[in-house]
Amino acid sequence: MKSLPLYTYQTVGIIGKQDDDARVVPMLERLLAHLHSRNVTPVLDLATAQLLDNNTVFACSLPELGRSVELVLVVGGDGTFLHAARELAPYAAPLVGINLGRLGFLADLSPDTLETHLDQLLAGETEEEQRSLLEACCGDDAAMATVQRGRALNDIVIAKWNTVRMIEFETYIDGQFVNTQYADGIIISTPTGSTAYALSGGGPLLHPSLDALLLVSICPHTLSNRPLVVSANCTVDIRLCHDAAQQVRLTCDGQTQVPLIGATNVQIRRSPHRVRLLHPRGYDHYGILRAKLGWGGHTTAHHLC
Amino acid sequence: MKSLPLYTYQTVGIIGKQDDDARVVPMLERLLAHLHSRNVTPVLDLATAQLLDNNTVFACSLPELGRSVELVLVVGGDGTFLHAARELAPYAAPLVGINLGRLGFLADLSPDTLETHLDQLLAGETEEEQRSLLEACCGDDAAMATVQRGRALNDIVIAKWNTVRMIEFETYIDGQFVNTQYADGIIISTPTGSTAYALSGGGPLLHPSLDALLLVSICPHTLSNRPLVVSANCTVDIRLCHDAAQQVRLTCDGQTQVPLIGATNVQIRRSPHRVRLLHPRGYDHYGILRAKLGWGGHTTAHHLC
Amino acid sequence: MKSLPLYTYQTVGIIGKQDDDARVVPMLERLLAHLHSRNVTPVLDLATAQLLDNNTVFACSLPELGRSVELVLVVGGDGTFLHAARELAPYAAPLVGINLGRLGFLADLSPDTLETHLDQLLAGETEEEQRSLLEACCGDDAAMATVQRGRALNDIVIAKWNTVRMIEFETYIDGQFVNTQYADGIIISTPTGSTAYALSGGGPLLHPSLDALLLVSICPHTLSNRPLVVSANCTVDIRLCHDAAQQVRLTCDGQTQVPLIGATNVQIRRSPHRVRLLHPRGYDHYGILRAKLGWGGHTTAHHLC
Amino acid sequence: MKSLPLYTYQTVGIIGKQDDDARVVPMLERLLAHLHSRNVTPVLDLATAQLLDNNTVFACSLPELGRSVELVLVVGGDGTFLHAARELAPYAAPLVGINLGRLGFLADLSPDTLETHLDQLLAGETEEEQRSLLEACCGDDAAMATVQRGRALNDIVIAKWNTVRMIEFETYIDGQFVNTQYADGIIISTPTGSTAYALSGGGPLLHPSLDALLLVSICPHTLSNRPLVVSANCTVDIRLCHDAAQQVRLTCDGQTQVPLIGATNVQIRRSPHRVRLLHPRGYDHYGILRAKLGWGGHTTAHHLC
Repeated sequence: MKSLPLYTYQTVGIIGKQDDDARVVPMLERLLAHLHSRNVTPVLDLATAQLLDNNTVFACSLPELGRSVELVLVVGGDGTFLHAARELAPYAAPLVGINLGRLGFLADLSPDTLETHLDQLLAGETEEEQRSLLEACCGDDAAMATVQRGRALNDIVIAKWNTVRMIEFETYIDGQFVNTQYADGIIISTPTGSTAYALSGGGPLLHPSLDALLLVSICPHTLSNRPLVVSANCTVDIRLCHDAAQQVRLTCDGQTQVPLIGATNVQIRRSPHRVRLLHPRGYDHYGILRAKLGWGGHTTAHHLC
Repeated sequence: MKSLPLYTYQTVGIIGKQDDDARVVPMLERLLAHLHSRNVTPVLDLATAQLLDNNTVFACSLPELGRSVELVLVVGGDGTFLHAARELAPYAAPLVGINLGRLGFLADLSPDTLETHLDQLLAGETEEEQRSLLEACCGDDAAMATVQRGRALNDIVIAKWNTVRMIEFETYIDGQFVNTQYADGIIISTPTGSTAYALSGGGPLLHPSLDALLLVSICPHTLSNRPLVVSANCTVDIRLCHDAAQQVRLTCDGQTQVPLIGATNVQIRRSPHRVRLLHPRGYDHYGILRAKLGWGGHTTAHHLC
Repeated sequence: MKSLPLYTYQTVGIIGKQDDDARVVPMLERLLAHLHSRNVTPVLDLATAQLLDNNTVFACSLPELGRSVELVLVVGGDGTFLHAARELAPYAAPLVGINLGRLGFLADLSPDTLETHLDQLLAGETEEEQRSLLEACCGDDAAMATVQRGRALNDIVIAKWNTVRMIEFETYIDGQFVNTQYADGIIISTPTGSTAYALSGGGPLLHPSLDALLLVSICPHTLSNRPLVVSANCTVDIRLCHDAAQQVRLTCDGQTQVPLIGATNVQIRRSPHRVRLLHPRGYDHYGILRAKLGWGGHTTAHHLC
Repeated sequence: MKSLPLYTYQTVGIIGKQDDDARVVPMLERLLAHLHSRNVTPVLDLATAQLLDNNTVFACSLPELGRSVELVLVVGGDGTFLHAARELAPYAAPLVGINLGRLGFLADLSPDTLETHLDQLLAGETEEEQRSLLEACCGDDAAMATVQRGRALNDIVIAKWNTVRMIEFETYIDGQFVNTQYADGIIISTPTGSTAYALSGGGPLLHPSLDALLLVSICPHTLSNRPLVVSANCTVDIRLCHDAAQQVRLTCDGQTQVPLIGATNVQIRRSPHRVRLLHPRGYDHYGILRAKLGWGGHTTAHHLC
């Protein structure tokens, strides 16, 4: 008689992409079926539960889900993963990204090998990474009385909004003045975000394990402007021109927006939280870069080792 | 009665730029006069001593100097500093770079304020930075029997030599395959070197305190190639095409060359040594960037904080 | 007895920058005084006339001014010149840009040498350039029923507006499909505009005399995207995603905006009009580039020719 | 009875790639067979004839071939085409590039559809382009006594050679001083060459029909350096530092080299010759760019026109 395997994770949260039911729903059903077959309890967040016509599944709010599960499966693309990671950052459960057919930097688990990889994950045969998040607080200059806050896994972007004119701002790092710039905006990115908007803006690729922040100006007027890479422990201050505050907006991961009305200073630091990201054994960061960026694989030339 | 100040450093090495006697000799004499007035013993390296018509100054080889002095003053530009730093890396004495009138990233102490700053330095009123060095070893593929070694404070460059054709190579980081490239070459840079050749090649600016390595391809054929920033603890392997080995050369800080005949693999790591770099109090890294790169200073607009 | 010189231009329009009275008004008065001393008749546009407390000067609308004067002096920066050039494009009079102390690419005549250069200009001792303008028409796909039109001397920009998301669009050149892009937007620039926003976006510098258009994508998602330079006779079509039309805006010279609601296709061609731009003899285009971009002047090294 | 078609071209030259016999020889035999079947006379250049074990084919030198044939088929990659185009530039016959399986920018005719496209070409059902060539002459400063000459279809590159140090040079366009640069070198490119080395160096894409030259600096020290696009009628002068002349080399299309010993000035102009390039009907320049650069094709999104 064969006993059931003892899984590392007994309670597993599931978060699905919205507005893509035709692809998401079959994947959710496939996940639920497989988890049931393994005697693992699935818990859905409320929005995901509404995608299903199934009253027997546990569903709760994202914070409740964060508190109650041991692992979270995120079904969708990198966008869905970013949203889930920001919301669940305060909780301990690690996240796994399952894509819907197109490899993502974060949603790297393919549907093709889903059940095999799920079994490995449930059995704890994983590689874990910790990814930094950023937190922004926006206040006025005098008292830095906080007006707005934001959190991001990829990047915080401060950019012109509703205007065709460049914005003017000063950058400070750990209180030291860096420069004054005219630009469309500035991207403050984690290593995770270095493959996202910062890359389109001309930034370098930072390995996810690097303890660093990346600053990339968007269309800077000064031609000698270059991306800056500084320690992840740095505090970055972006001080805006008073007059421009109505025509500047802060966005987190390109998903949530914070208007800066009344705020003249945005302070960005690493969050005390980390996102725990699980991959099946053999995770290959550079392989994903090659696939996503169209880089050259191993040469076929006979003369290369 | 006023007693002499007790200086932190009693024995000070001096290394001067070669082939620029008209500017270097007066500066050396000024340094010697000031050190004598402070009862500090100067020690010159042999090449520097030959610039002077002065038989009373101690002179010795660079390694001896490294072993015997408590502080080293390097007179010249960044090039002279790079040379001194590579040679003195195994020894404990910190270095100070004195420029000859044009601000350097490393030779940041200006002749205008020399005596004042020297007194501060001698009294230990300094800020110290530790800068990483790189070490390359070049071997053949089978046994990695080392053929050649190199050390660099700025960068190690592997590039085409004596040929108009691009070279082909594979990059590995910590043993993981990154990609195959056709390019004029590749720059592996420290944060210190990120303001040097890597910057001309399109790389970002890394803060000197960052524990990171920077890889920048020179004129890469693949348009989606981007600079890579990885942990300073990584081992980088560049594997060359056998046939090309005669037309590839490795250079350290753009100053010393290592032919790669017979070598098919270049392995680059951080050196166990660090360069200790002293600045007068109030050292402003971003101020030097602004001055050297022509960045905008504080705005004069009334509306900016 | 010395006769008055016979000037080439007897009637001269003057257009001044708005919202900078403290610098503009003294310059206008200086111009008026000098023109009177030369028996040349000045004509102001209405907005400029309002800056002055002077009832004796002729003033009229911009189109009337365009029809009635032989030469137009534009006092301000490049922004003021762009505005004047767009408005006066249909008329024959050449334009001269007089800056207020800071060299412009278009407003290249300095206050320091104003009277001397004015006399040369009035006497016809000039160099003339013809600069192309762009015209955009925005319509829907089916009938290309024109909804909106725009004209630009520098550039026409189609970019995201009021959204953090990239836009998706197809580009066609002379009816040939080029590619589909995700980007913040696209800049279609004249050679004149190649020193403006297109330069911040990573574009090359086109000599003003070149019969060419420049297309520069803003933060393109595809890393192998590169600026395109095509013949000035090309027709460029940018076809937008229907859903995005509310979150895309077209701007001309960064000054005028055209919402694209209901439009799915923007067609851009060279205008049949040209801007005639006058410079004093000895105009040095590359000298202005060196001054504005901080390029190296003649070397002082003895060994260079 | 069906009469043979009357072909536009009765005598056709064939030039094959060297050092790739396994792929070239079968293609040559296939071409010969097809031309014979069409009663067209093939003429090989001597080097190509040596690849074949066939004594019955006409063979002659490249200049003789240029003088005697009406059309030239070039079998190989872009490199083979560049060589043939430079050599045959003075002669009138148009060229067709046949690739060996991998699409080229110049060798755009695929083996898959060879016979069909050949029949179209022979019947004159073609699109013709005229491509500019560059000519360099290198002399000393005083008398511009020409020391060396070079010709290129893609680009002329003046770059450091046998040295790790940047070179210093002045650029003049039509006799006007542009700037002094420190760089690894400079690429002067035709529109044809804008997809070659200039693209790796950060240059824009110029449409082949554009009458323009492109100047791209290689790893320039000045960060505000940008690619320049000027009229194809311009004369470009690159003036070198005397001391560096031994460590600078001029290369044409990355294939032929000209040492610059004794030369201090390189003058580059458009050649009076043009290369006539034939394509089958329906040639799609942007389609080749998409294929070679990995650009996005037509979107599948339902909402795009």
